Amino acid sequence: MAVNGKSAVEQLGELRRSIDNIDAALVHILAERFRCTQAVGVLKATHGLPPSDPGREQVQIERLRRLADDANLDPDFAEKFLNFIIQEVIRHHEAIAASDVAGEGRHSAS
Amino acid sequence: MAVNGKSAVEQLGELRRSIDNIDAALVHILAERFRCTQAVGVLKATHGLPPSDPGREQVQIERLRRLADDANLDPDFAEKFLNFIIQEVIRHHEAIAASDVAGEGRHSAS
Repeated sequence: MAVNGKSAVEQLGELRRSIDNIDAALVHILAERFRCTQAVGVLKATHGLPPSDPGREQVQIERLRRLADDANLDPDFAEKFLNFIIQEVIRHHEAIAASDVAGEGRHSAS
Repeated sequence: MAVNGKSAVEQLGELRRSIDNIDAALVHILAERFRCTQAVGVLKATHGLPPSDPGREQVQIERLRRLADDANLDPDFAEKFLNFIIQEVIRHHEAIAASDVAGEGRHSAS
């Protein structure tokens, strides 16, 4: 984010280049998160653990809200964001458990 | 993600520690993204530009799908994720434009 003494169009271009870089980072970090949750899904399916874990999710939500607040990010948005990801993860955990091919699938899990 | 020769509970703990680190990174990167989009929102409001830009969004979606594919992340999920964020951003751009206090507000914009 570097904006100083430039026209509106130039400033918009600068900001969009930062946003594009940030989005590339987000995609790669999300890919790594799903590698972890894929492994969690396989573990859970192998050991017959339930796909969802409300206690763990509550702890995650409270922690993320605190981190968001420190980073000046709306905690409600951070919570919505985590729920959005967890829903995807649960969907994939259920697919792993149902298909019984714990080790396949592009990504998954909490 | 480091899992080798450990009990299921230990492996789950390891994976969850990685997930927690990744989530902290995501929160901070999202906070920076919203700082950028907040600045975009102020620019747009100041210059009377529309909050949404379908052409730009299409380019962002296609790029993110390619990046996701390279990172072995489901491109459909990447697209859904970007739309989730853009919806939040548009909501905040509209709020900036409506309130006419372009410079306030916790976060916003595309």
